[in-house]
Amino acid sequence: MSIITVIGSGVMGSAMSFPCRENGHTVRLVGTKLDREIIDHLKSTGYHLNLKRTLPDAVEYYQLEELKQALFCADLIICGVSSFGVEWFSEEIIPVLPIDVPVLSVTKGLIIRYNDSLISYPLYYAQKYLGRDFCAIGGPCTAYELSDLDNTHVCFCGKNMDLLHEIKEMLKTPYYHISLSKDIEGLEFAVAIKNAYALAVTLAVGLSLKDSETLHYNSQAALFGQSVKEMRSLLALFGHKDDNIVYGAGDLYVTVFGGRTRMLGTLLGKGYRFKAAVEKLSDTTLESVIITKRIGDAVLSKIKSGKADKKAFPLLMHVYDIIVNDAVVSIPWESFT
Amino acid sequence: MSIITVIGSGVMGSAMSFPCRENGHTVRLVGTKLDREIIDHLKSTGYHLNLKRTLPDAVEYYQLEELKQALFCADLIICGVSSFGVEWFSEEIIPVLPIDVPVLSVTKGLIIRYNDSLISYPLYYAQKYLGRDFCAIGGPCTAYELSDLDNTHVCFCGKNMDLLHEIKEMLKTPYYHISLSKDIEGLEFAVAIKNAYALAVTLAVGLSLKDSETLHYNSQAALFGQSVKEMRSLLALFGHKDDNIVYGAGDLYVTVFGGRTRMLGTLLGKGYRFKAAVEKLSDTTLESVIITKRIGDAVLSKIKSGKADKKAFPLLMHVYDIIVNDAVVSIPWESFT
Repeated sequence: MSIITVIGSGVMGSAMSFPCRENGHTVRLVGTKLDREIIDHLKSTGYHLNLKRTLPDAVEYYQLEELKQALFCADLIICGVSSFGVEWFSEEIIPVLPIDVPVLSVTKGLIIRYNDSLISYPLYYAQKYLGRDFCAIGGPCTAYELSDLDNTHVCFCGKNMDLLHEIKEMLKTPYYHISLSKDIEGLEFAVAIKNAYALAVTLAVGLSLKDSETLHYNSQAALFGQSVKEMRSLLALFGHKDDNIVYGAGDLYVTVFGGRTRMLGTLLGKGYRFKAAVEKLSDTTLESVIITKRIGDAVLSKIKSGKADKKAFPLLMHVYDIIVNDAVVSIPWESFT
Repeated sequence: MSIITVIGSGVMGSAMSFPCRENGHTVRLVGTKLDREIIDHLKSTGYHLNLKRTLPDAVEYYQLEELKQALFCADLIICGVSSFGVEWFSEEIIPVLPIDVPVLSVTKGLIIRYNDSLISYPLYYAQKYLGRDFCAIGGPCTAYELSDLDNTHVCFCGKNMDLLHEIKEMLKTPYYHISLSKDIEGLEFAVAIKNAYALAVTLAVGLSLKDSETLHYNSQAALFGQSVKEMRSLLALFGHKDDNIVYGAGDLYVTVFGGRTRMLGTLLGKGYRFKAAVEKLSDTTLESVIITKRIGDAVLSKIKSGKADKKAFPLLMHVYDIIVNDAVVSIPWESFT
């Protein structure tokens, strides 16, 4: 059995304790500065305030100042921060991590480089800390359902296939199924952009709830199909393999049905302007908003320099317009045909 | 304005009266032998017993023996039969249709030819009636939601692009959005096979309802991703363009959320054996069952002759096994990784 240290006790990092403990590993869950209350509560009750589940027996809890103890003899480090913690993880945490322990990141997202290129978080870390490799998890997995032991199929990616096999052996369970890929950039790109498109598809949820009390699926399916089309075009435009659409489509499906992105898209579809919707959700940490802005900016930059066709991404550009320019929802249906 | 004759007053054929009437066309809806009660009721009340909606004003209703009058001066014929009416339409109806009037088919499905090839219904008709072209509709569209005027994006396919443009002009509305494609076989293949995979994805609906009262989406998303993967492999195996996956994925999405396929998949996932589930639904006209058998047979034939890898379609083969061999549901998760 191994020692696994999870840094970041948000919902996804914490949910990883289920497959880890299932395999009998020692699990040390370390909170960030923002997780103090979560860790205090976990220490006294074992119950996670945001995940709203009791974590498995014998998980050990650490506040950030106890990080050094949490890392002692660790065999694997899981980075469980959200996009909003990436800078902090990169600046303050990676320097204190033992150099020979693999890091597996659950954070989905992309960072802009040189105006129009987008790189994954593992590559962002690796460019800063030369000589270290970072692995990551992509594919459809919500924290709540992983905690409920629902069958889940993810993909671990990294440069070193032997290492990926080792990590898979540590974490796979009868409900946690793991594919492996060396295509870090392609996989991470696909599962990051799906957040922008989940926002797009859920606009149709709000639109149908505005007009009636019933959910309609023709319009959701039309936006889902257009999303798959644009996601494939984005993969091509940014130089990634088309195969990654499989993870992107699965991840899009699960994101449409869960969490805050759906809540935001629904409010927007109902007629709330972006600022009002964010205010209503009292939530400024929406990954889908960040990624929509970043991809939108990168695509606009490519259009400006003649590398992309401005008509190729009507759905993405509409969502971008809603977020950046506070535009009214008005799906450009005919531009899809 | 034109005269549009719809043959087959099932839910999809009848729902086509909404965009047709929206554009002011004369719509003549003709029942098959099985639709006698539906047409009688429509004639007296305008209410469709199966669609459970009142059809637009001024739609004209015809029993099958009035077909000749219904075809008089028609500008477009819409074939609205299900897979189970294809033989009848081909043998008994096409011979009496005026040869110069275009036919647009809404039926999704495939027919086996020479053991391991699968052809679309439009091609099946065209091979029988040389010199005639048949157009068809693919893409995500449930009859119920088209009737509710939900935004819908379909694709019309046919050999003659000028004709497709004409038909699009006749039928497009502010909610019915139409792409055009000359790739009849690719599109029809993609939107037919999705029925088998909708059955597959909805197994996860039943599985999660069996274990708890809550729907889980990680497992649905895992099966959705695997479906997209296998659908792309099937498109390649049968010689079709990969682009058609966009319509296949959208159509899969909408089929997972509506109708009898979901009901069957859910029952199977809950633990009913196939025969018991079909009995419980009192329904032997399930398109998803037909198509799963046909694709499964064609793939098995290709495997036998060394043209296909038997490990490439674990999800399809499991659903095939459930239907043909009354197998117990046991998703082969690890074979997906």
